[in-house]
This record gives sequence, structure tokens and C-alpha cells, in this order.
Amino acid sequence: MDARVVRTRRDVLRATIEELFEGGWDAVTHARVASRAGYSKATLYVHWPDRLALVRDAFAAFGGMPHHETTGDLREDLVGELVSFRSAMTEHRLDRALAVLAERAGPVPELVEVRDAFVREGERPMRELLRPVLSGHRLEAVTAMLCGAVVHPVLLRGTAPSDEEIAMTVDVALAGLPELRP
Amino acid sequence: MDARVVRTRRDVLRATIEELFEGGWDAVTHARVASRAGYSKATLYVHWPDRLALVRDAFAAFGGMPHHETTGDLREDLVGELVSFRSAMTEHRLDRALAVLAERAGPVPELVEVRDAFVREGERPMRELLRPVLSGHRLEAVTAMLCGAVVHPVLLRGTAPSDEEIAMTVDVALAGLPELRP
Repeated sequence: MDARVVRTRRDVLRATIEELFEGGWDAVTHARVASRAGYSKATLYVHWPDRLALVRDAFAAFGGMPHHETTGDLREDLVGELVSFRSAMTEHRLDRALAVLAERAGPVPELVEVRDAFVREGERPMRELLRPVLSGHRLEAVTAMLCGAVVHPVLLRGTAPSDEEIAMTVDVALAGLPELRP
Repeated sequence: MDARVVRTRRDVLRATIEELFEGGWDAVTHARVASRAGYSKATLYVHWPDRLALVRDAFAAFGGMPHHETTGDLREDLVGELVSFRSAMTEHRLDRALAVLAERAGPVPELVEVRDAFVREGERPMRELLRPVLSGHRLEAVTAMLCGAVVHPVLLRGTAPSDEEIAMTVDVALAGLPELRP
């Protein structure tokens, strides 16, 4: 892609995310996104024929969340990954992204694949940390507990877990896994 | 309240929940709810001056989810409570209720108290089970892990945890709590 196309894409997808986070699904119209990004509606329609195309590309571009750099120490890496997840929630408004996907994938079935790809990509570093010690249903259950320890309070209570609560979560999970007992 | 008022309330609040779950926040209008419930818009306005009033009362009425009957065995009771939570999610569409609250409490700050009251009420039986053994940050962290083990997969992956995964979640948490070691 030439530089102008790259710039247009970046501006439009950023404006799409901003509209989506502020106003929700219904706020994402070609007119509002074009106006916010500073392009014509016609330009938007060339690349994105409908709202779903805009939102799908916007989530794909937004997906590159910063994750924790692994150290090889499982406890430290799990705590670090949950702390990064919490920062993404509160600082990069990943909380809004996930809430919109959770809510809109009900009435808009085309969003299910967008949600699933986005969540799978977000969970990947956590799964990679756990895969050497867990597999199958145990990997699923522990991934859900650890991610859920951030998702539940952030999305449903509007409060992020403290550093202390994140460390406790990881310590309870690790102490509870017989796979890790010496 | 006389029987007619009770019936009106029940019909209108049920119709509000149905509109909300099917179409989301924007679908809840006095016109649509009145038509669905079979009353006049004027009747609705007498009791509920705006959308927030309707939605607040609808969530309060919807909140009486069935919970697990406690047996006194902590493991069995935690598993039972998470199984009830999963059933409420998938059979009573609690997943839609929570997704709408998570998403709309961002742009509609008046919904924050509705969400908080609804979630607090939902978490209560879980906290009561844990309170004899945990307090403070540990109670918060373990409640978030256990509830999150259902919330995360249901809201963000569209799949409910299996019986096996729920049992594993509880077993990992219990094995990881030094408070419970003999």
C-alpha cells in the first residue's frame, strides 16, 4: 500500500474505534466516521462498503495490544500478563472494545467471528505461558479463571483489580495446580 | 398495590427486558414497550417517566435469579452456585443482561448504579459461601476468579464452561487456598 492509503486506513480505523467506544455500535456511521477522520464519505465507501467492514478492520487494527515481555518465571509472567491486560482495559479502553463485542455479537451475528478472533488473539500470550504445564479442559479452565479475574471486575463492577488482587489470583491458581507441585 | 397494577408492572417490565435483550438499549422506547406489553404509552408514562426508569425497574425485577440451595459442603456449594450462574446465563439470558449493562454503563452513567446493584445482588450467594474462610482482598480476588470463570467464556467467547471445567475451577481455587488446608 502506498503511504497515502496507509494514512487513510489508520485515520479511518482510529475514528471508527473512537466512535464505537464513545457512542457504541449505532454511532458508527460512514457520515460520522468520515467527518471525524477528515475524509469524504465517498472515500470510506470505496474501502469499506458497510459498517461491519469498518468495525471488523478497526478491531483487527486495534488488536495489537501491548503484552508483557516474558522472563521465563511462570509466576512473574502470569502476573505481568494480567497487569498488561488491566492496563489495556483502563488505558487503551479495551474494556469498551470487549463490552461492545460482548453486547453486539448477540443481535449482530456477523460480529461473532470478529469477537472470537479478537479474544483469541488477546488470550494467546496467557495460553502460551500455561501450555507447557496444562492442556485440554484444564488449560481452558485456568485461562478463563485468570482472564476472568480481570474481565469480571472491570466489565461488571467498573473497577480494576489491584496489584495485590492480581498477585493473589495468580498465587491461588499456581498453588492449586498439582502439575506445579515439586 | 392492587392486582391490576401488579399485572401492569409485570407485563411492562417483562416487555422492557425482552426489548433490551433483543435490540439493546436503543430498542427500549415507550412506544415499543407499550405495544409489546399491550398497554398505552400514556399508561407507561404514568409509572415510568423515561427509559432509565423503565430499565432500572426491569433489572430490579429480573434480578431474582434462581441460586443454588446450599448444603454446607463448600466444594459442592461453589460448584452448584457456578452451575446456577451458568444456567442463568444461557437459559434466562443473564448473558444479555450483563452484556447490555457492561456496554451501556459507559455512555450512560446513570446505569452505573443499576449495574452495580444488579451485580452485587448476583454475587451475594458466592460471597456468603466464601466469607467464613476469606476476607478483604482475598475475598475479592477469589470471587472475581470464580465468577470470572463463567463470565469470561460466556460473554467473550460465546461458550459456557462445561461441568468438568466448572468443577476444575473450584478445585483449583480450593486447593490454592492455604486457609482450607487441614
